Amino acid sequence: MRIALLGCGSVGRGVATVILEKGLDITITGMADSKSAVMDPDGIDIRAMLAKKRDTGLCGDRGLTAADVVNQGGYDVLVEVTPTNALTGEPALEHIRAALKRGRHVVTSNKGPVALAFSELRDMAQAAGVEFRYEATVGGAIPILHTLEHGLGGNTVKGLYGVLNGTCNYILTRMSEEGLTYDQALSEARELGYAEADPTYDVKGIDAAIKLVILADTIWGMQATLDDVEVTGIDMLTADALRLAATQDCTIRLIGEVVPEPKILRVAPRMIPTNHPLVIEGTLNAVTLKTDMAGEITLIGKGAGSIETASAIIGDLTYIAERYVKGT
Amino acid sequence: MRIALLGCGSVGRGVATVILEKGLDITITGMADSKSAVMDPDGIDIRAMLAKKRDTGLCGDRGLTAADVVNQGGYDVLVEVTPTNALTGEPALEHIRAALKRGRHVVTSNKGPVALAFSELRDMAQAAGVEFRYEATVGGAIPILHTLEHGLGGNTVKGLYGVLNGTCNYILTRMSEEGLTYDQALSEARELGYAEADPTYDVKGIDAAIKLVILADTIWGMQATLDDVEVTGIDMLTADALRLAATQDCTIRLIGEVVPEPKILRVAPRMIPTNHPLVIEGTLNAVTLKTDMAGEITLIGKGAGSIETASAIIGDLTYIAERYVKGT
Repeated sequence: MRIALLGCGSVGRGVATVILEKGLDITITGMADSKSAVMDPDGIDIRAMLAKKRDTGLCGDRGLTAADVVNQGGYDVLVEVTPTNALTGEPALEHIRAALKRGRHVVTSNKGPVALAFSELRDMAQAAGVEFRYEATVGGAIPILHTLEHGLGGNTVKGLYGVLNGTCNYILTRMSEEGLTYDQALSEARELGYAEADPTYDVKGIDAAIKLVILADTIWGMQATLDDVEVTGIDMLTADALRLAATQDCTIRLIGEVVPEPKILRVAPRMIPTNHPLVIEGTLNAVTLKTDMAGEITLIGKGAGSIETASAIIGDLTYIAERYVKGT
Repeated sequence: MRIALLGCGSVGRGVATVILEKGLDITITGMADSKSAVMDPDGIDIRAMLAKKRDTGLCGDRGLTAADVVNQGGYDVLVEVTPTNALTGEPALEHIRAALKRGRHVVTSNKGPVALAFSELRDMAQAAGVEFRYEATVGGAIPILHTLEHGLGGNTVKGLYGVLNGTCNYILTRMSEEGLTYDQALSEARELGYAEADPTYDVKGIDAAIKLVILADTIWGMQATLDDVEVTGIDMLTADALRLAATQDCTIRLIGEVVPEPKILRVAPRMIPTNHPLVIEGTLNAVTLKTDMAGEITLIGKGAGSIETASAIIGDLTYIAERYVKGT
């Protein structure tokens, strides 16, 4: 299987590293970062590319671009792992459209295009007879979409709720366990690399809301947008609120919830019993799927990380290889 | 898709009920209990069969047997959901072999044949070009095998541990939360239908051990048997042991564990921190899969129940329908 890999940040390097170290039967024929690109129909030298990126900050040549790779490269699957732009989805959205128009499968970890243009991209993929897969956009390494698609085959999903942002969960865990204030816990999260310099998207609940939109569109075809989600972040939570919850054998977690009928899309800090499966520690994520036959199924795992996200990407590539790329 | 359904206990009736109520495109052409059977190439009347079973204790005619259904019936998939015989696997094992020899897919919830003859049955299915699936044997409604097969595609599983017996988990939850003695908690479990009149298999850890054998064979091809599992049950646990664990913010759960290298298969009561994902309540089951890329993935759900087990059966049938039975 030949892939073109857009994005050479921690996820892109993670995917390339896993392909190299596990000796997977996947050839990277093109790779691009924001300033350069490299193409080789026989497969680029992954080790050399990673070394060049480390030494120069570029994965390829300045004369080539991601668009060149997408439009001229020879590949079976476009793997789009550039950072999320939640407002426009660009430049990923344009690249994904171009690959689907060329009849290529697309695998992405980029939440922007999926949240903004799910129906369009799904329809384009169906028309072209190819796959559009995005397991890595929700819950990191947790195979939520695979489980919905296959593991719970025959079930009707009646709703879901979960912890979809590891940064918030880390902050709330520390406030709850150590009695830290919100500002203290956020500082600690920043120092450990669990929160970005500007943590707005995470702590305001926007990242979790985007993931809810993706799940709502995938499971129920809701054609939801970020505006449909009622969002409350954790940045106004006080240590007192956590202490009060503790007196009732409860704690507070940022819970995302979708109900299809009557339609509810909501992200908010919620008080839940400390023995509830969604009370998980640190940067973990968890999702509970409410189904008609299987009852409630909860999946817990790492919500972020270079290799963890690569795991979800490789899972999608394996799925495509098994179904479409015979002989690999 | 045409199925033959062996077993008309709570699981068999659950499968039939779900097919009827959800209007699934599945035709039951044969059905058998231990004393009777019914066959109709055009599909038996599920509603009439369920009423007859309720009123007479028989699903069909005394003149027909399960073997008749298996050997003479017209079906694509044999669905074997009779009770587990852990010593011989019979009569299920013979029926499954016969169906595979006829080139029919097999789906089962019966732990006996899988634990006793996994390699043989897998090889027979491969030789015949059909599926042998058994999601319902481990973890009830939790799609553990689907997740291993697809959701974590590309990952190497390095080990697993989990809570695989709901009866024990219920007893331990009650001992821990209410300070009950083992005998008190067992009585309560019996009254609620969570423990059988003879709870030996459950409380001695044998049921969990059988599930470990199935997982070890499936994931690592260990060719393990029940004798390979080091088993300690919960029947000697005292309320004092639970109280002592509580003083260290821990509790005790019956944990099954498999490590492929060096080979460990073990079921034993273990002290674990109360905030650990495997500390689940009541009759729930949970499994944590340790993987090289995705890290630890934990799945939690109902480990038993008529409709929950039917969910796993239907999931396997859906898998087969998508791959083999086009046009359904």
